[in-house]
Amino acid sequence: MSDPEGFKKVSEDVHVSNEAVNSNPYGPNPADFLSNVSNFQLIESTLREGEQFANAFFTTEKKIEIAKALDDFGVDYIELTSPVASEQSRKDCEAICKLGLKAKILTHIRCHMDDARVAVETGVDGVDVVIGTSQFLRQYSHGKDMNYIAQSAVEVIEFVKSKGIEIRFSSEDSFRSDLVDLLNIYKTVDKIGVNRVGIADTVGCANPRQVYELVRTLKSVVKCDIECHFHNDTGCAIANAYTALEGGARLIDVSVLGIGERNGITPLGGLMARMIAADRNYVLSKYKLHKLRDLENLVAEAVQVNIPFNNPITGFCAFTHKAGIHAKAILANPSTYEILNPGDFGLTRYIHFANRLTGWNAIKSRVDQLNLNLTDEQCKEVTNKIKKLGDVRQLNIDDVDSIIKEFHSDLLTPAPTGPTPHVIEGLDESDSKRLRNE
Amino acid sequence: MSDPEGFKKVSEDVHVSNEAVNSNPYGPNPADFLSNVSNFQLIESTLREGEQFANAFFTTEKKIEIAKALDDFGVDYIELTSPVASEQSRKDCEAICKLGLKAKILTHIRCHMDDARVAVETGVDGVDVVIGTSQFLRQYSHGKDMNYIAQSAVEVIEFVKSKGIEIRFSSEDSFRSDLVDLLNIYKTVDKIGVNRVGIADTVGCANPRQVYELVRTLKSVVKCDIECHFHNDTGCAIANAYTALEGGARLIDVSVLGIGERNGITPLGGLMARMIAADRNYVLSKYKLHKLRDLENLVAEAVQVNIPFNNPITGFCAFTHKAGIHAKAILANPSTYEILNPGDFGLTRYIHFANRLTGWNAIKSRVDQLNLNLTDEQCKEVTNKIKKLGDVRQLNIDDVDSIIKEFHSDLLTPAPTGPTPHVIEGLDESDSKRLRNE
Repeated sequence: MSDPEGFKKVSEDVHVSNEAVNSNPYGPNPADFLSNVSNFQLIESTLREGEQFANAFFTTEKKIEIAKALDDFGVDYIELTSPVASEQSRKDCEAICKLGLKAKILTHIRCHMDDARVAVETGVDGVDVVIGTSQFLRQYSHGKDMNYIAQSAVEVIEFVKSKGIEIRFSSEDSFRSDLVDLLNIYKTVDKIGVNRVGIADTVGCANPRQVYELVRTLKSVVKCDIECHFHNDTGCAIANAYTALEGGARLIDVSVLGIGERNGITPLGGLMARMIAADRNYVLSKYKLHKLRDLENLVAEAVQVNIPFNNPITGFCAFTHKAGIHAKAILANPSTYEILNPGDFGLTRYIHFANRLTGWNAIKSRVDQLNLNLTDEQCKEVTNKIKKLGDVRQLNIDDVDSIIKEFHSDLLTPAPTGPTPHVIEGLDESDSKRLRNE
Repeated sequence: MSDPEGFKKVSEDVHVSNEAVNSNPYGPNPADFLSNVSNFQLIESTLREGEQFANAFFTTEKKIEIAKALDDFGVDYIELTSPVASEQSRKDCEAICKLGLKAKILTHIRCHMDDARVAVETGVDGVDVVIGTSQFLRQYSHGKDMNYIAQSAVEVIEFVKSKGIEIRFSSEDSFRSDLVDLLNIYKTVDKIGVNRVGIADTVGCANPRQVYELVRTLKSVVKCDIECHFHNDTGCAIANAYTALEGGARLIDVSVLGIGERNGITPLGGLMARMIAADRNYVLSKYKLHKLRDLENLVAEAVQVNIPFNNPITGFCAFTHKAGIHAKAILANPSTYEILNPGDFGLTRYIHFANRLTGWNAIKSRVDQLNLNLTDEQCKEVTNKIKKLGDVRQLNIDDVDSIIKEFHSDLLTPAPTGPTPHVIEGLDESDSKRLRNE
């Protein structure tokens, strides 16, 4: 073939350079000088937002078990349901504060002195205050104007600060709030000295570039840390969290499996997948990723749901490779189709070879595992037999192993010639028999 | 209270203005003049990428049933497994081409004349060609250099074009490919006249701003449409798709429930949630959203998975509201906590009131549904009883209805006074009895 017209031929060899291997195209963007991708913290809200999940009813014992598991995993903060939600909620909050966990304990309250007075007596390390600032919430939820909101905020913040504990002020439904109102109140609370201000996509419809813009703008207005809370109604909660960190946010609210109101918020496991792709060393230094699966199973059982089949990292097929072309490359070098290393999570990868999309490289790998000795040509031949049976029905590993073993055995003992009755086109008699017996 | 220092007081009333109601903060960004958020198309790949899902084995009949359902839903293209994957794959491709669907039928092949010659004879409306361009895939998959790739691409493209059908050229693992190599080959194939070029995040680790930059850059290099394919290993496949459209991509690859290699690609339903939040009219004019649930159930059953509990739109709790503060506002105006209208998908919303986080507005709404007559004060009183029982155990609707009915009945027939044995603190006798009987 001659060179195609217009194609700028470049001299190169196909060997992967060290530069390509060592650089991470999914890492922090060097142009984001305010980025906290390599300096983020987690506010774990399974015991607050997660309690708002339809199926959630946590007993005191279960709350303590979950809090300990979260602490062991390494989350920075654990957020609990408001102590004014119910009598038991207050007692549970006090009990968890007494556990002496490494994680700081927060509780989440309305921007109201009645709530704040109860919260500061529970023993928490900090209080997360929230108030609706969108016109929708101001009209249909609390009915207050921005001036009233600012006054309440200042009163509550100064009261909580006087108790020597952390305080966060967050708007609710931030993306449908008037930008000037928002910046105005954030600037006010920053001046009186909150630890964090929060942005919340309460209705779960924000998109990543919108998040980036708002965080960047807010970053230019306040000196304190920025925390973000993303609902997942439109499936963007993980991406929005990542983009918020790129824009300069420092803390992300997560829950195990993302449980929360409606279909929930940024899931802990999914965010770990996202962050380890960006900065593996930072993530591994802070969080015990091999405990993720147990943590998810604990919470899934408590709220009676199954781990979604397509869950990042722990979904049953997250590290399963099937198409022949994928299997071939994965066998040569897992990095070809896999950036996440299953070993980081205490998991293993699986090459799915028992199907019609399989390729001879995957089958050859299986032949080697079976300690059989076949040439490449013979592997290709037996692969064709497997693909033919795979066209007729779903295969399991035993089917494939049987075909390989029979093929191998037939090589040693050639089969008798002559026509065989009831043979299915393309399959030999033993395959056809197995198929007919199904 | 006096005005907080530094807060810029603004005059306002709390009533929502028409401007706030009619403007969509989640709509297309007017600064994105190349955006296709309101002009996108779907390439539905359940029968190609989806067949690479670990559990997938589609019979011919099931493929036809799924293809018809996708066509009825309104997808623009249906992509099928390569006809060279297996003999039955080729026959199924031919059978689906003969159905006379409105959607255009594509098949997906390696960038090789052997595959192309078979593909063009199946009756498809177009061929999607793919080749690995990252150094990883060039070394460990096909072992070819960029000059060879360009030559093969031109040969295959000119051959497919000569048959009068559509042709797409895509790189694989685009985000780990050398940018100059990528733009070079895209420019070459654009010049000879492909219908689309494709960007693929084959390993599922791209992030939204990275996607936006690459699409914008590519948009300045080629005249043809840009198609994008995002794996979901780090949970960003929906957000990446949306951001790609913002950057000027026109077509997004999706599959039902996102099924595909590993944990799959951008899910059809999740992308519909994202897009309807941005441009409801466009989405409703093209796609039959009320058929989404049946379509998902069809595919879930075929590949033997459950719909994830937190699936966008069709997850069992996607439109369930629980916390008292949410329920109150939702009852006043659903838009407060819900941008997506469940009615658009043939679904209904549900206010979860049988739990300790409930509020009196939610209970009052239930009282009204039960046709009982209680004052606001009485509703608050019965709400406290419900929250107390909700502190002790998980409640169901019958529990709440019984408490409300007994409370209402007690108002008409005052209970006898005097101490009652075995009464649980805070609950009256009938509540305590029910509880002890549990």
